[in-house]
Order: sequence, then C-alpha cells, then structure tokens
Amino acid sequence: MRNYLLPALLAITFPVCAQQQENDSLILRNLANEVLTHSTAYANLRELTQQVGGRLAGSPQMVQAEKWGVKVLKDAGADTVYMQACQVPHWVRGAKEEVRVISRRRDFIPPLNVLALGNSIGTAPAGITAPVIEVASFEDLEAKKDKVKGKIVFYNYAFKPEFVRTFESYGDAVKYRGQGASRAAKYGALAVVVRSMSHGANNLPHTGSLRYDEDAPKIPAVAIGLEDADMLSSRLKGESDLKLFFRTNCQMLPDTTGHNVIGEIRGSENPDRYITVGGHLDSWDVNEGAHDDGTGCVQSVELLRAFKALGIKPKNTIRIVLFANEENGARGGKKYAEVAKAKGEQHIFALESDAGGFTPRGFSLMMPDDKRAKVKSWAPLFLPYDVYDFDAVGGGVDVGQLYEAIGTPMGELLPDSQRYFDLHHAANDTFEAVNKREMELGAFSMAGLIYLIDKYGL
Amino acid sequence: MRNYLLPALLAITFPVCAQQQENDSLILRNLANEVLTHSTAYANLRELTQQVGGRLAGSPQMVQAEKWGVKVLKDAGADTVYMQACQVPHWVRGAKEEVRVISRRRDFIPPLNVLALGNSIGTAPAGITAPVIEVASFEDLEAKKDKVKGKIVFYNYAFKPEFVRTFESYGDAVKYRGQGASRAAKYGALAVVVRSMSHGANNLPHTGSLRYDEDAPKIPAVAIGLEDADMLSSRLKGESDLKLFFRTNCQMLPDTTGHNVIGEIRGSENPDRYITVGGHLDSWDVNEGAHDDGTGCVQSVELLRAFKALGIKPKNTIRIVLFANEENGARGGKKYAEVAKAKGEQHIFALESDAGGFTPRGFSLMMPDDKRAKVKSWAPLFLPYDVYDFDAVGGGVDVGQLYEAIGTPMGELLPDSQRYFDLHHAANDTFEAVNKREMELGAFSMAGLIYLIDKYGL
Repeated sequence: MRNYLLPALLAITFPVCAQQQENDSLILRNLANEVLTHSTAYANLRELTQQVGGRLAGSPQMVQAEKWGVKVLKDAGADTVYMQACQVPHWVRGAKEEVRVISRRRDFIPPLNVLALGNSIGTAPAGITAPVIEVASFEDLEAKKDKVKGKIVFYNYAFKPEFVRTFESYGDAVKYRGQGASRAAKYGALAVVVRSMSHGANNLPHTGSLRYDEDAPKIPAVAIGLEDADMLSSRLKGESDLKLFFRTNCQMLPDTTGHNVIGEIRGSENPDRYITVGGHLDSWDVNEGAHDDGTGCVQSVELLRAFKALGIKPKNTIRIVLFANEENGARGGKKYAEVAKAKGEQHIFALESDAGGFTPRGFSLMMPDDKRAKVKSWAPLFLPYDVYDFDAVGGGVDVGQLYEAIGTPMGELLPDSQRYFDLHHAANDTFEAVNKREMELGAFSMAGLIYLIDKYGL
Repeated sequence: MRNYLLPALLAITFPVCAQQQENDSLILRNLANEVLTHSTAYANLRELTQQVGGRLAGSPQMVQAEKWGVKVLKDAGADTVYMQACQVPHWVRGAKEEVRVISRRRDFIPPLNVLALGNSIGTAPAGITAPVIEVASFEDLEAKKDKVKGKIVFYNYAFKPEFVRTFESYGDAVKYRGQGASRAAKYGALAVVVRSMSHGANNLPHTGSLRYDEDAPKIPAVAIGLEDADMLSSRLKGESDLKLFFRTNCQMLPDTTGHNVIGEIRGSENPDRYITVGGHLDSWDVNEGAHDDGTGCVQSVELLRAFKALGIKPKNTIRIVLFANEENGARGGKKYAEVAKAKGEQHIFALESDAGGFTPRGFSLMMPDDKRAKVKSWAPLFLPYDVYDFDAVGGGVDVGQLYEAIGTPMGELLPDSQRYFDLHHAANDTFEAVNKREMELGAFSMAGLIYLIDKYGL
C-alpha cells in the first residue's frame, strides 16, 4: 500500500472509527471489482450508440432511446422504472448544409466542412451568396461593425491550448457559438461561420447550440472545421473580395413530447428522500453520442446494477435519471426540477456524468463548504483508484436545474478532459472512441460516492 | 486557485522561501505554455512512426530511426549530438506466422490471429502438427506435466481486470510470455501458444519477448488474440483431439551494431555532472511503435527544445538519450550504464518515459526516502497540471541499468495506464492512437521535474 499524507491530515478533522473506514474501503473494493469484472455498461453503450445512434430531441431515435432506457434500467434490477413526460424542442437539420468559397481565382476548392449550429434557422432554398468578413473576437466585431452589413461574419477565435483543463478553453471560446449569430445580426450580417470549439488535429466541424437574442434578426449559422477555418482565413488575407455560397436547410418545428426515463432503488429507511444520478439520453444528430452522453447514461445505470448485484440496500431512494433533452434546451432537467419542487420532494444530492467517459480524476461539487469538507474526508477511500480531486467547483447542466430550483447540493464526475474536445459534438464521438475500463472506473467512482453519501448523509 | 491541504502539510517538512516557490511556479507555467503551444513533439512523432515505422534492433528501420534521432536533437538545439555504438540482438520474424486449427469436424475456421514472440525460434519449414493441451497457469502445467510431451501447450491465463493500474495486470501475467516456452519444453512440449497480455476488446495478438532457459530445449512460441484464445478454449472443451498446425519463420541472427543517440545541453556550472532523460528508439516490427516508445523519445527531445526555447541554462549537463534496444535485450541501457561506470561519471538522476504517451498522473521513483521526500515537496507545483502522484515505486528498464550499475536515483513518467495494454506490442500502436495534448502534458511534466532536480539537486 502507498503511504499518503492526506489521509492522516483529514483524520484529524473528521474522526471516523477505524473499523468503519475499513468497512467502507472493503465495500468500495467490492464495487470496483464488480464493475471492472461484470459491468454491462459497455454492452449497453454499444446498443445505444450503434443500434439507436444519434438521438436529438424530437427525432424517431429519441423514442428508441427511451425504450432502450426503460429496458436497461429493468435489466439492471431497478425496483421501479417510469417515464416523466416533458415538452422538448424539435429542431431538424434537413438536407446536408453546404458552404462553398467563390473566388475570382476560379481554382477548385472543395465544399467547406461545416455543420449547421443547433437551433439555427435555415437559409431560403436558394441560399445566400455574400462577401465574408473575418473577426477575431467580439471586440474585433465591434471595431468592424460598420463593415458587417450584408456580409457573412466569420468568427475565427481559436481554442486556447494553454488551459490544462480543456473545459476552460471551451468556457473561453463558446460564446462565439452561442451568441455570435445574434451579435453579428444586430449589425446587419446575413449569416455566420464559427470556428469549431476544438483543439482537434483534424478538419471535423463541431456543432452545438446557439441562442438567438429576442432583439436581433435570426440569421443562419454554421460551425467550420479547423483546417478549413485556417484555409479560409489565409485566402481572405489575399482576396478581400472572396464570397461564400451558404445554404442550410434546418428548421425549428413546434415543441414535441419527450421523456426523462427514471429507475429507482427504493430507500430502505427513508424512501421519500432522494439521491439523483444521471446523464442525458439525447445527443446531436451527427454522431453516435458516445461520450456525450451515452457514457453518462450507462455509468448511471451501472451504479444501480452494481448496488443490486452486491445486495447494497441504500437508506434513501436512489433515482437514476436519463434526462430527455440537454443539448438544445435542458428541458429534461427543468421538468425534473419543476416536479421535484412542486411535490416538495426532499433531495439530498444530485450527481451527473456529462463530461465524457474518460479516466476519472475526481468530482466537481457545488455545495456549502461544510458539506464539501465532508465529501473531501472520504478522499483517502478513492485514492487507490487514482481518484483524487474533490476541489473543483461545478455540477452538470441537468442536475443544475435541481440546484437552481431547490438548492440541492450537486456534483459531476470529473474525467480527464484532454480528449473531450477532439470529438465533442463532432462525427467522431462514436462507440469506438470509448475505452471500456476508463468508462467503468468512472461508473465505479460514482457508485462509491453515492454509497458514502447515502450512508453518511451530507 | 484551488485549496489543497497537501501543500500546507509539506511546507512544514520542507520550508522553501515563498519567493522561490513563486519563481518555480512561474517557470513551470512557462514550460507548460511553451510545450502546449509550440511543441514539435507531435510532428516529430508523426515522422518517426509514419515515415520510419516499426524499428526493431538490427532492422534497416533502426538505422533510419537513428538518423531521425540525430536530426530532431539537432533541430531542438542540443549543444552536442553523438551516437554511442552497442551490440544489439538481431531477431527477424520472417514470413507471416501461421497457426491453424485442425478439427475432425472439418468446419471452416480462419487461421488464428497470432504473432511469433520476439527472440523465439521458428519451426522447420514444414511446421508442426500436434495436439493441444490448455493450461490455466504454471500450477496447472505442473499438474498436467505428464500429458505435455509431444503437444502444443496453450497458456490461457487471463489478464486480471481488477487491478486499477494495468501494469499490475501485466506484472501478474507476463511470466507466461517470458517463461512459458521453456517451462513447457522441459516436459517435452513442441511449441506454445500464449494468450495475449491485454484487456483489449478485439482480437489483435500482442507480441513481446520471451527468454529461453539454458537448460531447456528451445521451442517456438506465439501470442494469440483474445477472441481466438476464447474460441480455441471453447473448442477444446468439446474436442479433446483437436490439433494445431503451427509454423513460424523467425530466427535469431548474429548480433549487430546499433546506437544510443544522445543529445546534450552542457551544464553551466557542473558540466561533468549528468542528468539523463530518455526513451527507447527501437520498437516491435508489427506496428508504428507510437506509445512504445515513440512518445518517450519525442517527449525527451521536447524537454531539451523547451529548455532552449525559454533560455533555461541548467547547472548540470542534461543528456537526452534515445536508447538503442529495449524491447528484446535492453542492450542500449546496458551499454550506457557500462560506459558511465567505466568513465566514473557522476549521475544525479535518470528519468525515462516508457509507459505510453497518455495523460500524466505523476512519476514513479526509485531512490532513498530522503530524496523522494525532496521530490514530493515539489508536488504542489505540479498539482495545477493534474500531476499528483509521487508515491509509486519504479523506474524504466533502460535507466534501470544505470541504477543497477552505479546506484543513480531514477524515475519514470507515470501516465494513465487504462489504454496501454489495448495496444502494447500490437498492430494498433500507431500515431493515430496518440493524443497530442496528453503526450505534451507528459513532456511538460518531465521538463518541470528535471528543471527542479537540476536547480535543487537530489
């Protein structure tokens, strides 16, 4: 065994009887062995990603995914499985988007590698042909605002490589995807092209939602692959009169009905107190939705399966929730929180996995300091599994709704983030990109944390 | 900034002036930015893996790899670059190995997915046709020793999934690859088939060295893919008279000359005191040798490049060593240690990267407790980069020769190990399997550690 200094220090703050720590350590070891040896998560993920595939809210695949969710929760041994209806947005991409460079040089340039942004409107069938103006940032847009009218704005803000945790690069850059269209539309732009949110070493475009401001015209928007973004930028330096032909075929249809899929283990002591664990069932339409967020779903189901397989009887009711719609509306989480609030439910904790099925490093948490300190006192139990970080601040989008609505302490699995934005919202987020053991270690970590929170409270 | 308890505790043991810690923290940040922004490691790796390719000692690719090593070290700005000749084994695989199931059922079974083990002899051109006996372990071999004569022994010992760090699974299972042939030969076996050392979810065979005992006949040996191993085991349960046709075409030729490729930054204060950093240039012949050990080579070169780019002038001489032959002989490390000992060189520390170019978690170290405590006192400087483990015990095979010969304290980069044995010594250890940022963070971690050891000594 390795000799950690941390446990000794923490023991001063949170004296726990040695016998109890030993029992917990044994139960975590049993959970890890169970998951690493008998997990059904990988097989479940294969079904969801390869048989159902991409499953945007409102799509036929959404309905298949809900059926899959009910089946895997029953197979895992849930005491109860049910669906919670909610209204979800119904955005459709339509025929493949097309953006072409029109140059007076008349050389051959292949169509640009683009994807319409989620929630964006389409162009008219004839498309748009217009000059392009490149901007490096919103500050640059402001500086050039008088030249934007009648043009296509090209946001070429690069993902920063210096951040160690790549979600910080995302947080830094994603505003151009979310707000870029409306900000440009206010100055008369006709459409926008946004550099993909990625460090990836390839040319795949990465889609994702935009949000239209109410006080700006709605204009169409696409994400562009990094190599094509560099090429376009380079061409623009030599050809200020370069134009783009731009056609997208997407539309926002009326809301439709989706479902949160919920499976429970009924609490043995406090059936009316809840611990929520989940991921989101929906994914973008352009990939298999493996890391985003198939892994979060199957990890959550695996937690329930492992508890049942080991005969762990939680005191409180554990609810596994496969949320209906995170990607372009967070309507699943909102509905879940709304119902919890309306019923006056008591929620102890809510945990999400929606940062990829990569090797786990810890948990980000959002809760008062005393509760965080309690969770941190369990850190030594996780160190043998290379799970060490309980300092990060955060929680997932779906459980965040519960936090907002009724203040439930929340957390999110914190996997290693280096590979996430190579494939996030892009065509390569597939089953093959998931490593079985990395995902299983995440599922185990979640099970261990939930076991301890159920046992000791928060 | 996050609030770690660990730093506070360590500060008691190793009081370092706050100003100094701040300077070191800044220099590590500069090193990280330099590597994450301007690294040439990924481009260098692409050349080594895709232009040179597999490069077993004695092969023409070995010579190309040496030339590549000299070039990249010069490009990185080394003060001196030279080659150190050493004798290396010269094993050749020859024509593709072939192992087929011969069943009285006469159903079609594709040839088994096998690879001859490194250093193994070949069969006669006519091959061997013989019955198979499956053994679960060496204990099982002993129990069945009277039934082994004239047969092919099939070692079907599975890689254990319960170990969190996969090198423990490897340590547990690799004896069947290393010693299985000789142990079976003593009881009259004609050949062995060894289940691959992998958790992988595919059927790729994983090669690697065996070692013949001097007191046993040399018999040929292959590794078999996991799916074929399961299939063979399943068939054997129903067909005790199943035979295999077994032909390998490998041979061990006389030793030939290879080279350690060495680049130095001359020490500004103590040019005659050395810190060694390296990986091995050779790889198996069946893949591109990307994680094993192209990444270790390019990370070591990157350290030198980053020092030069930032104008860091080490006190002691930093030697980057691309070792000639680790896979089937460790002759590169042995020669390096032999020369160091003969010349009476003073070596402060030796660091290796040979566990894959995955996201780093820390360093394994082999050194007296007081020196380890000194290294651990720097842990807070690495935490912002998610590098936290300085407790693991170990060092690499190549620098291990220096440790053995003259007691040099040593260490090895400790990357996350979950994916390593999916591709170790198999056809899928390719450039595409390496994530640029994961590898770069490893290179940065190595640079940070060497910077501190050079500055403060050990």
